[in-house]
Amino acid sequence: MNIREESLQKHYEWGGKIEVISRAPINTREDLSLAYTPGVAEPCLEIQKDYNKSYDLTRRHNLVAVITDGTAVLGLGDIGPEAGMPVMEGKCALFKEFANVDAFPICIRSKDVDELVRTIYLISGSFGGINLEDISAPRCFEVERKLKEICDIPVFHDDQHGTAIVVAAAFINALKVVGKELSSVRAVLNGAGSAGIAIGKHLMNLGLKNLIMVDRFGIIDEGMEELNPAQAEMAELTNREHKRGTLADALQGADVFFGVSAPNVLTPEMIKTMAADPIVFAMANPTPEIMPDAAKAAGARVVGTGRSDFPNQINNVMAFPGIFRGALDCRASCINEEMKVATSYALASLVREDELNEEYILPNALDKRIAKVVAEAVIKAAHETGVARI
Amino acid sequence: MNIREESLQKHYEWGGKIEVISRAPINTREDLSLAYTPGVAEPCLEIQKDYNKSYDLTRRHNLVAVITDGTAVLGLGDIGPEAGMPVMEGKCALFKEFANVDAFPICIRSKDVDELVRTIYLISGSFGGINLEDISAPRCFEVERKLKEICDIPVFHDDQHGTAIVVAAAFINALKVVGKELSSVRAVLNGAGSAGIAIGKHLMNLGLKNLIMVDRFGIIDEGMEELNPAQAEMAELTNREHKRGTLADALQGADVFFGVSAPNVLTPEMIKTMAADPIVFAMANPTPEIMPDAAKAAGARVVGTGRSDFPNQINNVMAFPGIFRGALDCRASCINEEMKVATSYALASLVREDELNEEYILPNALDKRIAKVVAEAVIKAAHETGVARI
Repeated sequence: MNIREESLQKHYEWGGKIEVISRAPINTREDLSLAYTPGVAEPCLEIQKDYNKSYDLTRRHNLVAVITDGTAVLGLGDIGPEAGMPVMEGKCALFKEFANVDAFPICIRSKDVDELVRTIYLISGSFGGINLEDISAPRCFEVERKLKEICDIPVFHDDQHGTAIVVAAAFINALKVVGKELSSVRAVLNGAGSAGIAIGKHLMNLGLKNLIMVDRFGIIDEGMEELNPAQAEMAELTNREHKRGTLADALQGADVFFGVSAPNVLTPEMIKTMAADPIVFAMANPTPEIMPDAAKAAGARVVGTGRSDFPNQINNVMAFPGIFRGALDCRASCINEEMKVATSYALASLVREDELNEEYILPNALDKRIAKVVAEAVIKAAHETGVARI
Repeated sequence: MNIREESLQKHYEWGGKIEVISRAPINTREDLSLAYTPGVAEPCLEIQKDYNKSYDLTRRHNLVAVITDGTAVLGLGDIGPEAGMPVMEGKCALFKEFANVDAFPICIRSKDVDELVRTIYLISGSFGGINLEDISAPRCFEVERKLKEICDIPVFHDDQHGTAIVVAAAFINALKVVGKELSSVRAVLNGAGSAGIAIGKHLMNLGLKNLIMVDRFGIIDEGMEELNPAQAEMAELTNREHKRGTLADALQGADVFFGVSAPNVLTPEMIKTMAADPIVFAMANPTPEIMPDAAKAAGARVVGTGRSDFPNQINNVMAFPGIFRGALDCRASCINEEMKVATSYALASLVREDELNEEYILPNALDKRIAKVVAEAVIKAAHETGVARI
């Protein structure tokens, strides 16, 4: 039985991967009077007097909504809201297991940006944070941007930022392995979708200066007709030498390749044209841009993929549980760039200098220390940037 | 410390009355592959192929949303969505404790009927049922009616139907105590709000023929200017003799009083004008229309209230957990009148003939048999009326 068949069977056995339980005992009439009427009137009135008490007197302080419209589920595409729910429930299970965050999955039966935004805003008083998931680009950018403007709780599109944060951590450590500086390397990023654009922005927030982004139609440069608005925005920040051409053209002399694109688009020949000690992050799932052994054979010094069966797995389970743990604990009003950058460095720091090598640039995704260390970094950055509320 | 102060303290200690836990183990890389990527793709694709699989492969089969807009919370009125959440969480705790239903609280930041309906519809694919709660009349009627038209899962406004179902059960047994027939008694119902109208409709579905409804302005009769649309609808079904006047006028010769109105509006003198062996359900909370001892002294044979410190408590915790348990288990498309009537008779049947007396017409609200017996009755009625889907 392969992993998919086994997963299906397990899903039938589990009968749902989340469960809602009661934290209040209900055994006696007195219990009923305290947890429900008439006693419950008092916490209600306290919240009416002071809205912030909703965090103390309900579960809101530990509760994140995991929300999708089902339009970009895994690599499956637009499979519909209900069909996306096994992924959302899985995410909720990870939130609980890695960071003790209560996460609840919600699918929305609309693809209209404004309707999605309005619906999520209207229910946002029930939660302490919003994790957007598997919403297709470029709609996801607008949904997140508009929600951030109107919500008083953190909104985080994990497909963008989770991946960006973890690959940046891997990159920080890979640079140590090859002895290069982030501010002076030449980077090429293939796949200018939601994850790609988020990775590009995040790397520049970390200090990367020389970045060329590439999409199906080739190198992205200012003024090209093919660009969508999000790509056009990136075109103003990247490729300052205004190169044009193919992925192969972009890679000549580059120090690092980031791929969030398609299987087998990176060839050994392209790697051979890169600078000395090239770094290759081939993150297309499940089949990467180039298989690790082929990349190594072509000269790549450090290789990372999205897969758990090779070293250096770029897995965003290292980021989102700790990020929301931290954001909830300091009651942050948002998850800002500084908090994301701090998370990347915190993740990188979990690999000690004496452990660091080509095949070990990130901690084990299942390492239970991660969420705690990330949360601490997030809380510190939130306080430093004035977005922490407690 | 009184119950409200103690409740507030407990709410701080609990830090929320619900919690979301994981049902899938996440300890190894293989666990991750089964509960999340890449394995999770398979259940997603199964649901995409067959929408009904969303019940088997996610928690939907056991999941009810408890939804409010915060406009009519307990007797506190329009205290706002977030302030209503302690009640919603309490309800969710009761759902779990009494019927093992996973219930999740959601508050919506809108008072607009169409926006409430649209929002709830858009998220309804995440749930197996919708329990509406503490939405003010007459908006609640329209919200429920419109949702029932468009949703493929049960929608149930507990403030209306829960109370109606339990008081009807109490009434069935009270009639046995006094030896009268439901179809021939004269009934008066004071308080034509959402609960009152639901009680009136439900009693007539049980076979009550002679009902007079009364509101602040007096007896409700066809053609009166004071009536809102819901009351006007009831005026066409009740008071066929077209009486007009006060509550006192209505009660002369009546067999039973139902009050969902205001403290102390029923006087001993009024009871004395009722027929022999009068039944009094004085359900205003926390202070009833008349205190039980005063009602008894004035000649009432059977007295019920909403309070736990007197016999015959009308508590809708006897209804909603078992109703949703049954509706979920047979995957009912709705909760129809037949299912509600069956619930009232099932509840009444839990008091054996040899136990039945003036002070014991309903089972103890904490009796754990209740939800099971109610669920069985609901499933039977759902199958008989063709709304069960498994």
